[in-house]
Amino acid sequence: MSTVGPRSRAPRRTATTGLGGEQVEGRQAVRELLLADRRATREIWLAADLDPAPVLDDIRELAAEARVVVKEVGRGKLDAAARTDAPHGVLAFARPLPEVPVEELLGGGRGPAPFLLLSDGITDPGNLGALLRSAECAGVTGVILPKHRAVHITPAVTKAAAGAVEHLPMAVVGGLPTAIRELQQAGVQVVGLDERAERTVWDLGVGDGPVALVLGAEGPGLSRLVRDRCDHLVRIPMTGRLASLNVGTAGALACFEVARARHSLG
Amino acid sequence: MSTVGPRSRAPRRTATTGLGGEQVEGRQAVRELLLADRRATREIWLAADLDPAPVLDDIRELAAEARVVVKEVGRGKLDAAARTDAPHGVLAFARPLPEVPVEELLGGGRGPAPFLLLSDGITDPGNLGALLRSAECAGVTGVILPKHRAVHITPAVTKAAAGAVEHLPMAVVGGLPTAIRELQQAGVQVVGLDERAERTVWDLGVGDGPVALVLGAEGPGLSRLVRDRCDHLVRIPMTGRLASLNVGTAGALACFEVARARHSLG
Repeated sequence: MSTVGPRSRAPRRTATTGLGGEQVEGRQAVRELLLADRRATREIWLAADLDPAPVLDDIRELAAEARVVVKEVGRGKLDAAARTDAPHGVLAFARPLPEVPVEELLGGGRGPAPFLLLSDGITDPGNLGALLRSAECAGVTGVILPKHRAVHITPAVTKAAAGAVEHLPMAVVGGLPTAIRELQQAGVQVVGLDERAERTVWDLGVGDGPVALVLGAEGPGLSRLVRDRCDHLVRIPMTGRLASLNVGTAGALACFEVARARHSLG
Repeated sequence: MSTVGPRSRAPRRTATTGLGGEQVEGRQAVRELLLADRRATREIWLAADLDPAPVLDDIRELAAEARVVVKEVGRGKLDAAARTDAPHGVLAFARPLPEVPVEELLGGGRGPAPFLLLSDGITDPGNLGALLRSAECAGVTGVILPKHRAVHITPAVTKAAAGAVEHLPMAVVGGLPTAIRELQQAGVQVVGLDERAERTVWDLGVGDGPVALVLGAEGPGLSRLVRDRCDHLVRIPMTGRLASLNVGTAGALACFEVARARHSLG
């Protein structure tokens, strides 16, 4: 029930793909890593001083099933290896997240219509992770990230995503404008979230066909070329005094608007 | 253009009310503190090494108008006084947030119908702050917090709320079940968010009358008595593999569902 693995230090990282994700921190994130079983887990570290919790029992049981080594390590050693502020005593070393081609996200007519999420340069790892978590809950079927901005799935992203990165197929592309063209040629309606848009997400009416939501960076929003290429631009209707929502929250609201449309028509 | 104030150390804190909020950290939060002008600001500290930014210009201008002392302090001193991880070089000392009675939140028939948010024990400051920010953007008119659980508006709540606490009237009550009765007697429909509910927020149909949303703690959700007293229980419809949304995100989705109903009927 155990594999041969390094005993006294963190496993060496494998060559990274564009996505990353090799170091997984936090209880939910590690449990979903094992549950999804999309990539091999090399080793799991649990702090020796953890109080019992159902999620820890799940992790131990899933690890035993998958023959993954589980080590109890001192808190100091775990925190030294951790790359987020609060790994909550649980850390896993895994193969990088698999990268899929954009064509695969289009589904080839099988399964539900594609519901894609595109990040146009979201830079804060907490925001990107939170957004991925909400997107997965809303039924997003795939994610497209640009190679040169905000792409790597860091431990902070993985942790905030609470396991969503294990379930969401993700593609990395050279440029988002080109990817948008490709999606449009495949019949996908591309909707950009833009706080200056005239229409709101409530008026969107995308129906239940293939759709892609594009979210811009915190602050500047969508880049010029991406904005120009979108089929629709919509905003979240704001009725308070504050000028803006958190980008993760705005994205969650947009994702669930699409989910609602697909639900009522699907 | 300046008031007499302590020069070399952080102003003494005044006696706290139930709400707190005396120390405000982060650029958006401090700007909104000055913009809202609901309470006196004693002093503002800016790190001496800050790069120019429009939000900092806003803060300096609003402070000058309000005759609030602005001090440039060393980064080490500012970070030592800060109570959040990332004050982003801006810190304000202010009077505590004003507490309002529940009756005032009911509006007495003036203005828009009350749209209230009740926290049934949300404990994570980041979640509570993010929720308050979203709630303000959705048009929530008042917040009710229980005295004995998760009530104090800490610097971390204030910062995550990005200024929402300055605009949202807040009441503190001895017990939430009693407050719910009081709201119901005043004609407010009370809606609890509960992941085990049969109905979803999409089927809610609260219309544009007085409404209160109740959100439970991370993990356990609504407490038994609170759940029993709600007029409706609804859940966010989940279509992915993950079991749960972040409580701040779930709350944002519920708030904007109410906003949508009020918008389409109002």
